[in-house]
Amino acid sequence: MKFNTNTANRKIPTELHGRKLIPFSGKGKGPYRKRKYAPKIRKVSASDNKVLKSLRKAIKKSELTDGETISFHHHFRNGDFLLNIVCHEIAKMGLKDIRLVPSSIQGVHKEILPYLEKGIITSINCGTSGTIADAISHGKMEGLLTIRSHGGRARSIENGDVEIDVAFIASPTSDIYGNINGVYGEYACGSLGYAFPDAQFANHVIAVTNNLVPFPNTPISISQEHVDTVVELDKPIGDPSGIVSTTLRITRDPKGLKIARNCIEVLKASGLLKDGFSYQSGAGGTTLAATNYLREYMISKKIKGSFAMGGATKSLVKMLEDGLFKTILDVQSFDTYAVNSLLNNLNHIEIGASQYANPFTSGCVVNLLDTIILGGTEVDVNFNVNTSTESDGRIMWGMGGHQDTAEGAKLTIIAVPLLRGRIPIIVDDVISINSPGENIDVVVTERGMAINPNSPYYSILKRNKKLDIKSIDELKKIAEDLISGKPKKPKTTDRIVAMIEYRDGSVLDVIYQVED
Amino acid sequence: MKFNTNTANRKIPTELHGRKLIPFSGKGKGPYRKRKYAPKIRKVSASDNKVLKSLRKAIKKSELTDGETISFHHHFRNGDFLLNIVCHEIAKMGLKDIRLVPSSIQGVHKEILPYLEKGIITSINCGTSGTIADAISHGKMEGLLTIRSHGGRARSIENGDVEIDVAFIASPTSDIYGNINGVYGEYACGSLGYAFPDAQFANHVIAVTNNLVPFPNTPISISQEHVDTVVELDKPIGDPSGIVSTTLRITRDPKGLKIARNCIEVLKASGLLKDGFSYQSGAGGTTLAATNYLREYMISKKIKGSFAMGGATKSLVKMLEDGLFKTILDVQSFDTYAVNSLLNNLNHIEIGASQYANPFTSGCVVNLLDTIILGGTEVDVNFNVNTSTESDGRIMWGMGGHQDTAEGAKLTIIAVPLLRGRIPIIVDDVISINSPGENIDVVVTERGMAINPNSPYYSILKRNKKLDIKSIDELKKIAEDLISGKPKKPKTTDRIVAMIEYRDGSVLDVIYQVED
Repeated sequence: MKFNTNTANRKIPTELHGRKLIPFSGKGKGPYRKRKYAPKIRKVSASDNKVLKSLRKAIKKSELTDGETISFHHHFRNGDFLLNIVCHEIAKMGLKDIRLVPSSIQGVHKEILPYLEKGIITSINCGTSGTIADAISHGKMEGLLTIRSHGGRARSIENGDVEIDVAFIASPTSDIYGNINGVYGEYACGSLGYAFPDAQFANHVIAVTNNLVPFPNTPISISQEHVDTVVELDKPIGDPSGIVSTTLRITRDPKGLKIARNCIEVLKASGLLKDGFSYQSGAGGTTLAATNYLREYMISKKIKGSFAMGGATKSLVKMLEDGLFKTILDVQSFDTYAVNSLLNNLNHIEIGASQYANPFTSGCVVNLLDTIILGGTEVDVNFNVNTSTESDGRIMWGMGGHQDTAEGAKLTIIAVPLLRGRIPIIVDDVISINSPGENIDVVVTERGMAINPNSPYYSILKRNKKLDIKSIDELKKIAEDLISGKPKKPKTTDRIVAMIEYRDGSVLDVIYQVED
Repeated sequence: MKFNTNTANRKIPTELHGRKLIPFSGKGKGPYRKRKYAPKIRKVSASDNKVLKSLRKAIKKSELTDGETISFHHHFRNGDFLLNIVCHEIAKMGLKDIRLVPSSIQGVHKEILPYLEKGIITSINCGTSGTIADAISHGKMEGLLTIRSHGGRARSIENGDVEIDVAFIASPTSDIYGNINGVYGEYACGSLGYAFPDAQFANHVIAVTNNLVPFPNTPISISQEHVDTVVELDKPIGDPSGIVSTTLRITRDPKGLKIARNCIEVLKASGLLKDGFSYQSGAGGTTLAATNYLREYMISKKIKGSFAMGGATKSLVKMLEDGLFKTILDVQSFDTYAVNSLLNNLNHIEIGASQYANPFTSGCVVNLLDTIILGGTEVDVNFNVNTSTESDGRIMWGMGGHQDTAEGAKLTIIAVPLLRGRIPIIVDDVISINSPGENIDVVVTERGMAINPNSPYYSILKRNKKLDIKSIDELKKIAEDLISGKPKKPKTTDRIVAMIEYRDGSVLDVIYQVED
């Protein structure tokens, strides 16, 4: 296997599973297809009926065959049943060599593990967590896991890097003609934003619902003009209570709270925190705490922000309701409070994944973010951030919009503890890179913060005496001293099981199978 | 020139202006491209600015060159200024051989006549009325006028029959990133539905506004992800009072009122007029009167309809407000009352042109219409309807959604007087065909109605004793007797100046230059 070294100093094979790889070469410098993907034109006449009671009949009608690609969205997060239901059906139908392109694989999807092992599912394109991620790390899938950010996924669908043969859309409500929204009914999950590119660019679209409502179903999040079949399923498509997963609880850990406070201190020092401020944070416990501190500060200083972006949470919605932000732009609703807000508050707006974060559009919203607070499993001395692999080398997580917001926002803050258990988080070299260091401005820990010397905010933050600023090497050393040593490198084989794309489609890193 | 005869019995050249023509061969049987058009991918980074104060700079940035195609939408109808402003600018810039693809050419656009004569604008694709239509009939444009229905236009843009190089979107409000809606501000025009395909499929999009608002501008009718430049213009883009043109006043003519009443009698007899009924009518004075009679009847019988579609008018909105319809689906708002309703009523929904009427999607709304009441300049004994040419052979009008709704609706009613002045409306052969007879169920006049023997409603209507049913030949003869003769055929040259496409892209008819 031949390799090139990319600008993040990672060795990237020239070719992998038949695909020629373009090494990452810095933000804004990636490859760039000239034309959008041209999906199949379908034709539905006045006499045609779109509703089927049987998922199998719908799959047959779609003419899905071996070797093809199917997609899903993950707005039900750990409460999603549809991906499992469809995979079971496909397995029963004897289909094989299927590529899965969900917007995320969650713990609940462990049911599909046998299909990876049997070659029914042979590759996956998306951020993946839990059992399936672990299995892939142990070499249990024939093909490759391609990890993309939310914006990168939208890009890959819109520019044809990924051709979706059949998109399955878990539809909280649909009418007989496939007008879908996520805000009504027993199975409401809020925004359907990640499914927008699937609906627009798939060659065939199947809406699956438990809640068939009279035409026209409004508001229309996904329009009938893209939906070929509506399946009225007797089994539930998801459990909305599963939307709130463990990643979404605010931290009570004093260390986490200190990090959160430090993040807000950075924001205050940056000069960005003024009227018209725009904000997004990740969904980790610490960043949720930071949002609450931000709230208090904005109230105390009477700051009126512009837009907040989500993952929309109750915390964020409360800030909208209190006039601290003018608008929430919502690609994914993280709790019932946010779902209700999307339904009832005219300033809570559903957006699609491309509008949110696709780098190859006429302009996505992450470009307009003042600040983003993100997490990570590791950060290295070059400010590269790992979100996908744990210190033992196993894939455990995806990356959401990490890459997208980190590139787009003016000020990107990584909020991490120095140690998790006895594992140092700031290291010489991250096991794998999800966000390149060039996009990271500040790394905030409970024992001080490091500012990227290449950040445009370096000098303004550096001269602020209130901030506990250290170099990234100093932070690393504090952690190493605490555990009296350096972390061990994980043992891996030489088989590549996963690839991390940059949002533009170039390759940022590869992940090797772990040793058993 | 070689000709084929199509199934509407019209002679269609095998080739015209370099394009091979496919003759119309009946609904559902037309040509069919396999893939959607793939527009250029553009890239806008966080550091890029989209706002320009100068239209010329925006056009230069778009790299528009000779021989290319520009598009517009006509939601300001006869109050649209933008098409004129852009054409003046293009002429000043020395560009030539430009193809115009507006969703309609109205009387107000007479200003562009010199550009047709000078070869700056050499072809037009759209329904065209007024001075420009007349000039084309007299041979004043070098290339061809291609007349398409609203659904046919959307199809041609989505399937690449028409490649739009630069779309200009008259934007009542836009933010700095090109999120556009038509419901706010001094220049509100309501729905922007006809511009949806332009925004999604053009290779470059310029939003022009007098009302630049803070980001994010919501609701988002057209999203930033498609808009490359936002021009803040000092001249008004349109005059909203021009939206209500002469075609939109309810008739007071007793003949027109009688026709309107007869239409409702047909509807009652059809069995369609019950709970869940769906309805659209054209914007002529007679059909507006029919809507009012429909209203009275629905109230008296306590009928609750499903959706009404527009051209949304005050009449229709009142029916929504009174609970006679559950929803209005609005591709174009015809008056200020409708604009306000779109802004404030959650059951008044903006839809795009493809969702409305594009035959090559996974299903457009016209497919679900129970009934449509339409007009025409002529109807012939084969039930073919002419909307574009007058009896003297000159092009005077476009056709809106005539073709689309006539094909889609279960029951298509043509409401026409027997005579206009001394000109008979029911003739042996229409001068040009916009809607083929196979899609027409009933022709209603003030002296009775004719039912198409091929209509599935023929027998149910025929046995209704309340209806004054005659044959189409009888109706024709009554009119001929009134004027003591047959109408004269217009004198034309052998040069084809316009072509009428069916909504699927096949050719229904051609129109010849009139003799001077």
